[in-house]
Amino acid sequence: MFALDPTLQSDCHELGNFYLCRLLLSNNKTYPWFILVPRREGITELHQLALADREQLWKESAQLSSWIEEVYACDKLNVAALGNVVSQLHIHHIARYRVDPAWPRPIWGEGESVPYSEKEVEAVRRRFLAAFSGELAV
Amino acid sequence: MFALDPTLQSDCHELGNFYLCRLLLSNNKTYPWFILVPRREGITELHQLALADREQLWKESAQLSSWIEEVYACDKLNVAALGNVVSQLHIHHIARYRVDPAWPRPIWGEGESVPYSEKEVEAVRRRFLAAFSGELAV
Repeated sequence: MFALDPTLQSDCHELGNFYLCRLLLSNNKTYPWFILVPRREGITELHQLALADREQLWKESAQLSSWIEEVYACDKLNVAALGNVVSQLHIHHIARYRVDPAWPRPIWGEGESVPYSEKEVEAVRRRFLAAFSGELAV
Repeated sequence: MFALDPTLQSDCHELGNFYLCRLLLSNNKTYPWFILVPRREGITELHQLALADREQLWKESAQLSSWIEEVYACDKLNVAALGNVVSQLHIHHIARYRVDPAWPRPIWGEGESVPYSEKEVEAVRRRFLAAFSGELAV
């Protein structure tokens, strides 16, 4: 049984489920920062995924990435599976701008988190659901 | 025509070519740090890869990751496509240890690079070629 890691749960807002992954929004509006979590138990590394899951993950990642580029008009995407703090496999997708506070450094550990208001999270969720309604699992 | 980015070329040693990717060894022996560069022109983001290339990349990534785990007995892998400095798509594969100097932070920008000796690079290359001779392109 898949259960979301408690740290991810407390640091993020849940936006919905793709066929394989749960999509999270990191609760730091300094960066448009999304996280895909494959809904599989006990997986900590990308290469532990079964072949079909690996292919599905990167399909969902590509769909998410295209959407982020379109909505956030960023200069670069940062896509990363680190997991030094939270071992449950999760893949960061972060929209970066040449003028953002950390550029060109990676964002982890940079600055204080600036949480979203409820209204702002709802706006992101609505936009996400409108774009992906055909791609979502229950 | 694919040509390796000059910064990657000067910061890394080339170990060989998988079917899709060139494998680089970052010239910093503080961390076992490998980089896959898909040999495709003009690609800066993972989701720009054609489907067959995307699937091949993650196959090569999985093979490389299993090999790194086996050879370096690390605690965690960090796999990341950032590209804020070098835009040519390249995917870091870094072996991390709970006792390494940056743990649990990401390693980019941490500490000074400690270059390999020629002998040390040759030892890594030999070990790599022995493991992957069947998987390599010319």
